[in-house]
Amino acid sequence: MTSTASFTDQDLAFVEDFRTMGTFGATGNGGVDRQAASAPDGEQRHWLKGLLEERGFTVKFDRAGNQWGLYEAVPGAPFVVAGSHMDSQPTAGRYDGAYGVLAAAHAALRLRAAWGEAGAEAPKYNIAVVNWFNEEGSRFKPSMMGSSVYTGKLELETALATTDAAGISVRDALDAIGCRGDYAGPEAACCAEIHIEQGRSMERDGVTIGLVSSNWAANKYEFVVHGEQAHTGSTVIEDRKDALLGASMLVVAARELANLFPGVLHTSVGQLNVYPNSPVVVPSRVNLLLDLRSADEAVLAEADSLLHSRIAEIEVLASVSVEQHHAHSWPVTPYQPEGVELAAKVAADLGLSNKAVMTLAGHDSTNMKDIVPTVMLFVPSVEGISHNEHEYTTDEDIVAGLAMLTGVLSQLCTGALDPNTTHPEGP
Amino acid sequence: MTSTASFTDQDLAFVEDFRTMGTFGATGNGGVDRQAASAPDGEQRHWLKGLLEERGFTVKFDRAGNQWGLYEAVPGAPFVVAGSHMDSQPTAGRYDGAYGVLAAAHAALRLRAAWGEAGAEAPKYNIAVVNWFNEEGSRFKPSMMGSSVYTGKLELETALATTDAAGISVRDALDAIGCRGDYAGPEAACCAEIHIEQGRSMERDGVTIGLVSSNWAANKYEFVVHGEQAHTGSTVIEDRKDALLGASMLVVAARELANLFPGVLHTSVGQLNVYPNSPVVVPSRVNLLLDLRSADEAVLAEADSLLHSRIAEIEVLASVSVEQHHAHSWPVTPYQPEGVELAAKVAADLGLSNKAVMTLAGHDSTNMKDIVPTVMLFVPSVEGISHNEHEYTTDEDIVAGLAMLTGVLSQLCTGALDPNTTHPEGP
Repeated sequence: MTSTASFTDQDLAFVEDFRTMGTFGATGNGGVDRQAASAPDGEQRHWLKGLLEERGFTVKFDRAGNQWGLYEAVPGAPFVVAGSHMDSQPTAGRYDGAYGVLAAAHAALRLRAAWGEAGAEAPKYNIAVVNWFNEEGSRFKPSMMGSSVYTGKLELETALATTDAAGISVRDALDAIGCRGDYAGPEAACCAEIHIEQGRSMERDGVTIGLVSSNWAANKYEFVVHGEQAHTGSTVIEDRKDALLGASMLVVAARELANLFPGVLHTSVGQLNVYPNSPVVVPSRVNLLLDLRSADEAVLAEADSLLHSRIAEIEVLASVSVEQHHAHSWPVTPYQPEGVELAAKVAADLGLSNKAVMTLAGHDSTNMKDIVPTVMLFVPSVEGISHNEHEYTTDEDIVAGLAMLTGVLSQLCTGALDPNTTHPEGP
Repeated sequence: MTSTASFTDQDLAFVEDFRTMGTFGATGNGGVDRQAASAPDGEQRHWLKGLLEERGFTVKFDRAGNQWGLYEAVPGAPFVVAGSHMDSQPTAGRYDGAYGVLAAAHAALRLRAAWGEAGAEAPKYNIAVVNWFNEEGSRFKPSMMGSSVYTGKLELETALATTDAAGISVRDALDAIGCRGDYAGPEAACCAEIHIEQGRSMERDGVTIGLVSSNWAANKYEFVVHGEQAHTGSTVIEDRKDALLGASMLVVAARELANLFPGVLHTSVGQLNVYPNSPVVVPSRVNLLLDLRSADEAVLAEADSLLHSRIAEIEVLASVSVEQHHAHSWPVTPYQPEGVELAAKVAADLGLSNKAVMTLAGHDSTNMKDIVPTVMLFVPSVEGISHNEHEYTTDEDIVAGLAMLTGVLSQLCTGALDPNTTHPEGP
């Protein structure tokens, strides 16, 4: 960890720009509210456009609302893609996503400057800064929408037709902030993303850089619990088919599962809606989203099976029926080991403490790694606070992360992760 | 129970009018959606106005939106007030409230006709049909709003300033349907209401008329469970302060309490709202409405104490804090025994099977009995279904209830429940 006294002018400019980002959609408690394609999301996107264009980058919006800042050092060559997302949860912290986009922008400016120096070696690839659209998924589902369209996992038309709770489509929301373009997106050679850890393992171990080796596996479900409307006062208990009771038992069951597999299984219900939600009516329907996540696929499979046994019990105990919708799962998938190895070497060269970590949250790089070699980096998150206005990472760590990302991108731009590149230190 | 073959033309007209009522705000499944001061509530109110005015009644709206159909047989004398409410829950049955208003209207027409007959004894009191505003409380809280204002339990200005979820005030909503007047309401001598049972005890015992002797006691709470926003994927389980987990444990605890006191304690959570309610954020806040009801005040007190002990445990188990707001309680309060006795005599004279019952649900008559002698009557509800589109009472029973109400109102109009009236049969 460095002290701020050692900051260069470039580091100070980065910290200053990061402060500015926290003013877009600022909330009273030091956080931000910049849901996808909201007015503050649009304002910040236009601010980033100005920042990059002033420094010689070409800024384009693609058809899915992803924002690209392009710098061509080698006309016609593919691009190294670096970035994250600037949208946020409704009451969110300033670091999640935003840090990664700004770090990518500043890293790209540093590379551009370095390539312009007399005697510098020419890169093999160009550099593209990306601000992915709607990574959070709070306003429009699914999350990681922009990178899913770019990587061919989601149809463009499906994404554009998605509506928020007020019935506004992604297409209309993007048009309203002037961020839907006709660009197809650049050809990617490889990718890098930096993000806060959103956990406390790095803080606990006192390391500055996390080298993300893989993501946790996840099973995500939408459950609909069906009961029957009745009067809350007069209906006798044994006649009740209370959908909220069934749903509540499911929320409690999810936590009990996590307690069965301490540290290796995370479960949650983040969203739950009750119908008709009237004070004197026994609820007839509850929709809820339940996730199971684990680093160990065998644990996930066992937990999933226990969950479904418990659901069958809840159906009897609460006299409800539970319908399962929209299951979405992903396995433990590694980031390319060559990328982890490359990043470890860059960190060592920079004198930054580091360790391999897994990511429990999804990131746009999770999509990108399925189509090109991708490096995912973390910086520590104080107390692991995430999706919360009090999220915080020290200036020292965000500046160290910027140096780290710059080093990695510099290597990637020389083709260090090309399949046919021989590593200097051998196989 | 009579058969429809014995229906008079008046009975058939009543059944026909009741069918018409079910068309206002009709839903696809045979129910209605007529929340307070909605367009269909307004349409039905204007239909009732026409029905009563055509038959010589004067119809007025008071300042709280209660609708009054007045017939003065004795100019200047107080009124016997008879009615119920025509608003409904969002997906409700056709009988709840609406039956009681229409039965009161037809009973009043029958009395008026009887008083007009040659040689008929003149009544002591006039008759007022009432359609109370917002009994249900689903759109605007609290429930029983119109009768609460009329009986002085709720300030008029407080009621008018209450807003629904969309921010529309009672004042504006009533104005929009043309149902806010400047009438102060009639002077009441006594009151009667008829309603479906909303339980299955009368059906089980095969009786046609329920003589309501008292209401169950109730404690109603709004609880706010406070947790802390965090990432649902990455935050380790022991760091989570999950407001939805705490709320769910509270919902389950409410049911467990009811199971501890089988048949004598009813508990429920009808409304529950989650914030920020995003798929990937551990909820930071949940608001919920929880009721405890019992016919036995000692049971209610014990259950309440157990609930609060359990809340203290839940605060520890789920790492949340639970704030209690807006407690609203009422004791077991009897309807005037003289009224129950009078009703029993009328039922016997009409040859209608009957028994004393308690009401578990609140009714406008619960308010009225605190200011004037009040008679509350029930007809059976098939399978006890209530606050549900499939609510059903047979034509035989609604016609029998109308005859019963007519008989009771006829007695009340002669002053049968006046404090100084000597009952023919002794003390």
